[in-house]
Amino acid sequence: MSTPSSKPSASFQAPTGTRDFYPIELARLRYIQDAWRRTSINHGFEEIDGPTFEHLDLYTVKSGEGIVSELFSFERFGGEKKYALRPEFTPTLARMYASKANSLPKPTKWFWMQNCYRAERPQRGRLREFCQWNCDIIGDDSMLRADTELLGCCIGLLEACGLTAGDVVVRISDREVIEQYLMICGVEFPQLSEGLRLLDARAKMSSEDFRRAASSIRLNVAQFDTQAAEHARKSVGGELLFSELERMGYSDWVTWDPAITRGLAYYTGMVFEVHEASGAERAIAGGGRYDGLIEMFGGPPTPAVGFGMGDVVLSLVLQDKGLMPSDDQIADKLGLRPDAVVISNGTDAAEELVVPTLAALRRAGMHARRSYKTTKNIGKLIQDAVKQRARYVVIIESPEAATVKNLDTQAEEKGVPVAEVGGRIRK
Amino acid sequence: MSTPSSKPSASFQAPTGTRDFYPIELARLRYIQDAWRRTSINHGFEEIDGPTFEHLDLYTVKSGEGIVSELFSFERFGGEKKYALRPEFTPTLARMYASKANSLPKPTKWFWMQNCYRAERPQRGRLREFCQWNCDIIGDDSMLRADTELLGCCIGLLEACGLTAGDVVVRISDREVIEQYLMICGVEFPQLSEGLRLLDARAKMSSEDFRRAASSIRLNVAQFDTQAAEHARKSVGGELLFSELERMGYSDWVTWDPAITRGLAYYTGMVFEVHEASGAERAIAGGGRYDGLIEMFGGPPTPAVGFGMGDVVLSLVLQDKGLMPSDDQIADKLGLRPDAVVISNGTDAAEELVVPTLAALRRAGMHARRSYKTTKNIGKLIQDAVKQRARYVVIIESPEAATVKNLDTQAEEKGVPVAEVGGRIRK
Repeated sequence: MSTPSSKPSASFQAPTGTRDFYPIELARLRYIQDAWRRTSINHGFEEIDGPTFEHLDLYTVKSGEGIVSELFSFERFGGEKKYALRPEFTPTLARMYASKANSLPKPTKWFWMQNCYRAERPQRGRLREFCQWNCDIIGDDSMLRADTELLGCCIGLLEACGLTAGDVVVRISDREVIEQYLMICGVEFPQLSEGLRLLDARAKMSSEDFRRAASSIRLNVAQFDTQAAEHARKSVGGELLFSELERMGYSDWVTWDPAITRGLAYYTGMVFEVHEASGAERAIAGGGRYDGLIEMFGGPPTPAVGFGMGDVVLSLVLQDKGLMPSDDQIADKLGLRPDAVVISNGTDAAEELVVPTLAALRRAGMHARRSYKTTKNIGKLIQDAVKQRARYVVIIESPEAATVKNLDTQAEEKGVPVAEVGGRIRK
Repeated sequence: MSTPSSKPSASFQAPTGTRDFYPIELARLRYIQDAWRRTSINHGFEEIDGPTFEHLDLYTVKSGEGIVSELFSFERFGGEKKYALRPEFTPTLARMYASKANSLPKPTKWFWMQNCYRAERPQRGRLREFCQWNCDIIGDDSMLRADTELLGCCIGLLEACGLTAGDVVVRISDREVIEQYLMICGVEFPQLSEGLRLLDARAKMSSEDFRRAASSIRLNVAQFDTQAAEHARKSVGGELLFSELERMGYSDWVTWDPAITRGLAYYTGMVFEVHEASGAERAIAGGGRYDGLIEMFGGPPTPAVGFGMGDVVLSLVLQDKGLMPSDDQIADKLGLRPDAVVISNGTDAAEELVVPTLAALRRAGMHARRSYKTTKNIGKLIQDAVKQRARYVVIIESPEAATVKNLDTQAEEKGVPVAEVGGRIRK
């Protein structure tokens, strides 16, 4: 038997950038996850999951060795293969799809919601452990159909949370179209990647630094800024995408924005980010088309498009807009309201019946609670049941007589045999 | 922009001892988690969560340095504090309770269900990543009330999964009572820990090895084996516990078993394990009283009792007993059945209406799907809707005329304006 260290400590804290969720905080997260899940299912996605950690090379093959400093990586004690906590789910999804590509439906529509981990310095809206929701459509030969269905699911979630087209904006771009337009604006083919990187980094650069870097790759910034969005909108893909989104009722939500390139190297076509309209907070969601990734993980060439949304920024935006429901509303939505609180009239014989009655109600599938207060003041005990927001309070007097009171309507029935209490409060 | 490694690989696999969950496998896990959640809530527990990894010393303070070889531990890149993936949740729970002990209700009843990680060699019923359900009652001064309520919740889950007292057995013991009886059977006080360890390890030892070890601490094995269970049952705590469980209707499920000691050093009183009745498989669940732990983590002296149950062994037992519902039953229970599949009669004008109709149904909160098949054979498309187990199929002919067919009753309505389809299929 190992001996616990003798030094007790009052200073244990959650690691930097992680969170403790007490019941109220967790219910708020569950509210968001419930909206994610319901939206995913309504849009025809099926849920999958994979390991919390993967072989480290699953991440370096996609993002290069440079990603290692952003990962929590480790070996098993005594040495073995190297692992890393997932910084995102897409590599796992690509691995899972690639290994069963031949037997999976076309398209395959998957959603996923679990935690991700990044070894960065925590900032507002960016933690080391956070919950992420992903939706992906893989293997649909109609890119337009998949892109619009995916965008519809993302906007559908925002709508389901009470957000409007005035609160948030979905900024859409297309890496291929932007590359074409960078070339029209003077950038040579070998500098295209640098051009995309520069557009992606622009918001964090001084305008002088940006102009200097742009001129080094011969990018005509004035031309690009005035005409690129128009060019993208007027491209064949752009016209079709926006007219389809209009037919879905979502044209108010979307705008072309050539500044959206998404930092990750693997996007190949349409890319998008969702932002709070005034520019407050980080991106709420982001995604795009990654047609080369399944093949990189050993599968057949497969078109694919997906997005991710984290819980942290979405929560901040919902709170800022007053759209996070009250704790009572969340409890109702999650089915946390007690069906009954069982108390006794204080006699020993009645008190003896509380435990068996609770057991019978719970066995019948009801959410039944007792009071843990020591008082025998029935009025106070009923107030305790009201405070717990129970639908009913059951006051046991004897095996033949309990009072069953509906706390919503105040209707009460006296003299109910204890064995029949469950039938009285069944929904 | 970092450059992805050029070498593609067809050999990416999930790490040893972890699992990929495709939709059907994940639905089976969600079925178990749904039962866990519903049972916890019905018994008055509230859900909490904490970080997936903790400071390494959170685990060594409780279990000693010996635990490090069983952990996935790591540092942030560039060095910093040491972390470890949680092998269990109890240290996090104790830390969270200790840091808010003064403002939490008495008792506090918490449940938790997330993944845990152990760097051991995987075996049947024991993986490196698995899902765990914990229920804990902290700060109830009535140990009898808390112990029986906790056992009732654990047995309530087994019942809710369709298991009976003939399928599984809840083996209960009490470390204090067993220690008393070890002393009656010859063991001196300084050897008590060794005696408990020996009882815990007995099932894995040859009877000769056990007898030799027992004799080295002067344990009279014959006396212990014939009388310890009877002694425990007749102890004051034993009598009360069993009579309370009988009044809850659970006496058939439980038995005294002095061989149950639980390997972990921190249990202080009642301990229990749930086993498949024939002894097949590892323990389904285990737990007990740990009255010293909250104080060890910096809180006030606090009575506490809890148990954990993993998904792996429970799933094996349910499958063995034929108690895992069919995939269709699980889909119904989890609300995964589509409300409608929307198709067109194949004309361009009707096909154009599929996407807006889908968007409208989804916006109204319905689970709406389309067909991705290229056929225009309506019979085949309807069969596809049947295969997806949709409640309705919607066949669009024109903006003024859609056929809405209930696939359960075969009742159909023709000539429904497309704008009114949602109203027709609303639950």
